[in-house]
Amino acid sequence: MKHFLEISQLSLQDVTHLLQRALHFKNNAMYPVYPACPVINLFYENSTRTRVSFELAAKHLGMPVVNLDLQGSSESKGEVIEDTVKTLVAMGIKLFVIRHVQDGLPQTLAGIVGDKVHIVNAGDGKHAHPSQAMLDFMTIMESKPDLTKLKIAIVGNIRHSRVANSLQCLSALLGVGELVLVAPERWQPVTVHYGRVTDSLRDGIGDADVVICLRVQKERLGSGEALDLASYHRDYALTRETLAYAKRDAMVMHPGPINRGVEIDDDVADGLQSCILEQVKNGVFMRMAILESLCLAK
Amino acid sequence: MKHFLEISQLSLQDVTHLLQRALHFKNNAMYPVYPACPVINLFYENSTRTRVSFELAAKHLGMPVVNLDLQGSSESKGEVIEDTVKTLVAMGIKLFVIRHVQDGLPQTLAGIVGDKVHIVNAGDGKHAHPSQAMLDFMTIMESKPDLTKLKIAIVGNIRHSRVANSLQCLSALLGVGELVLVAPERWQPVTVHYGRVTDSLRDGIGDADVVICLRVQKERLGSGEALDLASYHRDYALTRETLAYAKRDAMVMHPGPINRGVEIDDDVADGLQSCILEQVKNGVFMRMAILESLCLAK
Amino acid sequence: MKHFLEISQLSLQDVTHLLQRALHFKNNAMYPVYPACPVINLFYENSTRTRVSFELAAKHLGMPVVNLDLQGSSESKGEVIEDTVKTLVAMGIKLFVIRHVQDGLPQTLAGIVGDKVHIVNAGDGKHAHPSQAMLDFMTIMESKPDLTKLKIAIVGNIRHSRVANSLQCLSALLGVGELVLVAPERWQPVTVHYGRVTDSLRDGIGDADVVICLRVQKERLGSGEALDLASYHRDYALTRETLAYAKRDAMVMHPGPINRGVEIDDDVADGLQSCILEQVKNGVFMRMAILESLCLAK
Repeated sequence: MKHFLEISQLSLQDVTHLLQRALHFKNNAMYPVYPACPVINLFYENSTRTRVSFELAAKHLGMPVVNLDLQGSSESKGEVIEDTVKTLVAMGIKLFVIRHVQDGLPQTLAGIVGDKVHIVNAGDGKHAHPSQAMLDFMTIMESKPDLTKLKIAIVGNIRHSRVANSLQCLSALLGVGELVLVAPERWQPVTVHYGRVTDSLRDGIGDADVVICLRVQKERLGSGEALDLASYHRDYALTRETLAYAKRDAMVMHPGPINRGVEIDDDVADGLQSCILEQVKNGVFMRMAILESLCLAK
Repeated sequence: MKHFLEISQLSLQDVTHLLQRALHFKNNAMYPVYPACPVINLFYENSTRTRVSFELAAKHLGMPVVNLDLQGSSESKGEVIEDTVKTLVAMGIKLFVIRHVQDGLPQTLAGIVGDKVHIVNAGDGKHAHPSQAMLDFMTIMESKPDLTKLKIAIVGNIRHSRVANSLQCLSALLGVGELVLVAPERWQPVTVHYGRVTDSLRDGIGDADVVICLRVQKERLGSGEALDLASYHRDYALTRETLAYAKRDAMVMHPGPINRGVEIDDDVADGLQSCILEQVKNGVFMRMAILESLCLAK
Repeated sequence: MKHFLEISQLSLQDVTHLLQRALHFKNNAMYPVYPACPVINLFYENSTRTRVSFELAAKHLGMPVVNLDLQGSSESKGEVIEDTVKTLVAMGIKLFVIRHVQDGLPQTLAGIVGDKVHIVNAGDGKHAHPSQAMLDFMTIMESKPDLTKLKIAIVGNIRHSRVANSLQCLSALLGVGELVLVAPERWQPVTVHYGRVTDSLRDGIGDADVVICLRVQKERLGSGEALDLASYHRDYALTRETLAYAKRDAMVMHPGPINRGVEIDDDVADGLQSCILEQVKNGVFMRMAILESLCLAK
């Protein structure tokens, strides 16, 4: 594993190793240190949770971490992003954690950084968010390890969700028994990587073992794709009533940040079945595993 | 001491311990390290000095520190602050240093973070700024340890000052001989925690051992409470002339940043009686004591 | 060497020591650590590369580093910069890395920080950028150590370039054989520190051993000094054609960030003669040498 760009580039062995290593970090408070592996968090989109999660992961592993304030970056002086990245490589940065609005940009950058530098995709446009998918499956498998027997439902704007893309790819690789993508027609995916599509919440989450609720990204809604929030809540929100369609021990998950009262109600988000904070917790350990694995890559 | 929210929640023993520990740090350059105690500086209001002071304190103690850029936080995506804090707890943050414009918010957040996480109030609205009061009394007691014999005057916008509130509470706890709150009528406190109020600078600082000058926070002045700066300077500024009312060795203090020529003149701010930079210096050591104490709390 | 403000304040011995020490860091991955030497990056002008370069340099040397977000600084509350700096000194900051739009400000601040605190000028207005000049000569001397035999050309807006000023001073100190400053008339320097001036690119870079191309700082162009970019490119850009005037092994340098297609073409910037990324790489080591030297100063 030379870069961590999207799930489809990982082998089953890569994924299994990362899952095991993340669990190891979760269960052992003594961590190895990698002071010769400077990390940069290069975030061209705002993100509290992902940036802090990677920053803590790097610090736990003794890696020097630099956060780049992109309002103040050379980009504003007209430098192209490729030159920014090459400059940071020349400064000795070994690991780039990149979030950007442009689909595929981390892949492009991976082509120019040379042999000893590694790129982590921390979310690119509507394309992929592979570390989120990895931490989600870490969370699922801690409770329900036999994925072949599970029904997993993903509910929300599947069409525009990088999280949903990465979850589909990882479901395929790990052999999830049944994956259902639940969305109103205009939010249904153009390309399905794995699973089947439905516009019925009842059908989609009926008897599900895991329900992954996506965030309604109000800030990404163009006028053409806008839904009114009230009708979305009526038809697709996870509420006490709709959650009853799923298995009684169904896990409720959400990549966060949640919109309370939009795609999920308080009593579900804060209820006994909610694994949302466990996802966040596992995220730091999974990112430690990813950073370590790249740092040790040949 | 589980949280550090306001002076009225501290015992005399807590305060004495913090003062002793801060002095210890000041006099011993070798510090213990707490790498398993990640700290976040969660500043919803701008602050150079308080943020840097806490950041240096945490770094001296080997605590991993994350600064959260709140322009780029999930709040802007509609996440409520309680969810932000719970998310950061799940990521393993042990100490929250919080500044926010809303009175009492740190107290509210302390109710949701669970048993092993600790909140430091770094200034909430017009309510409290307890670490400032602690470092102020550390500074006073280094020079004039018998507080029962002292007259201390606080001059400025007492009504809207979180610093003045915390100073009153700490004066009560430590048994300051005489505390006088000096302000024009519209800036006099609605509730007095300790001490007496006067609108006469001459009365207030006459024979004082310590004069604490508050900042005129121009950015907080609503139109109704506005004073014109020239008349404030004439009646309430610390100048060479007005400082002569106080004892000849009176300590001059200010929480900073100072407005030169508004509430304090250059020759006082930079004069021999000024302890303003000593306050700043002590601030780092006091914050080390606070962070350590919470890190070690059961 | 108590501060690092401008080349003209350095002795030949200072410069030689820094060059040797930077090369030592480049060739030895084990670095000494200076945990008792807190550094602040106090940037009043945006800069990706210089800030990150100093931040990495400080971290490699185990120095605690604080970045100051100047949008959120006390300055916005009306504090003068001298008070900000004195406050940070009181907090225990030992090394200030300062970038500011005002010529000479680091020098002014050096006068107020006291005996045990050191200032690094990371670029002040149009005056000086001495660490850039140092890393440039480190890069030149690694390939072409006998400076007395070299012809070096600097091309661009010499009049307003702090880099060009520092390069002239360092060329004088180190005894560069021939220095030529190439610029259109309105960008020619008012005061020449070293070298001769020409408006002819062909004359200037003819048979040069080193060509240093300055950035066209579009953001600094006032209306009176504006040039149209197309005519600048025609007359002064480094292209495959114009580079042929210089020696066949001429080094091509640029302080970055580059404006591709303005002052330099892609095939030159990315060509075999380009040393631009080597400059960036050397920058971290040179800044380590500067920070260490000040940290150890009496």
